[in-house]
Amino acid sequence: MKNLQVAYLLDFYGNLFGDKQREILEMYYQEDMSLSEIASAVGITRQGVYDNIRRGEKEILSLESRLCLMDRFVEISRSLDSIEQILKSESVTDERVYSALTDIRSKI
Amino acid sequence: MKNLQVAYLLDFYGNLFGDKQREILEMYYQEDMSLSEIASAVGITRQGVYDNIRRGEKEILSLESRLCLMDRFVEISRSLDSIEQILKSESVTDERVYSALTDIRSKI
Repeated sequence: MKNLQVAYLLDFYGNLFGDKQREILEMYYQEDMSLSEIASAVGITRQGVYDNIRRGEKEILSLESRLCLMDRFVEISRSLDSIEQILKSESVTDERVYSALTDIRSKI
Repeated sequence: MKNLQVAYLLDFYGNLFGDKQREILEMYYQEDMSLSEIASAVGITRQGVYDNIRRGEKEILSLESRLCLMDRFVEISRSLDSIEQILKSESVTDERVYSALTDIRSKI
């Protein structure tokens, strides 16, 4: 069963993994490949793939419990939404403001 | 010689270290204690403290090279500054906007 939180967190923390483990996690979580397909693709057993994924998930959840990036970014995103709504309701039209809001979204 | 970038990054990544190593890094970078003072405080040799700090610095810089949190947060902070400036120049007075901007700052 895929853990949606892990899928999302993989975007933040994927770079902390070695190439091979990141590749396996991405195949599973982003490219939606089966364990057997991943096993053939990387040349290890299906059980090896499974173990890699479980270990990776555990590590990702542990990183998030300590860095809380997703929590922070979700809250930043909510604040950006409310800023945008208020500015529109006040008819602020200066494009520079909206483009700065978009810049922030691209960083989170 | 203290590395100012490490001092700043310690805020982001400190939680990824074990208690003892984080404590040593904080004593050195945030409480400005000398190697000898830290050595007495934690009960290891001055050389042990030194090694711990060097290892920690290396790890922090490696984490940042992969996650780029500081880079992201510095850019978010710049975007927040420019949003605030523009809104003031356009005489937007709605307090909710400024409070949402402050909320974002508190998350980065």
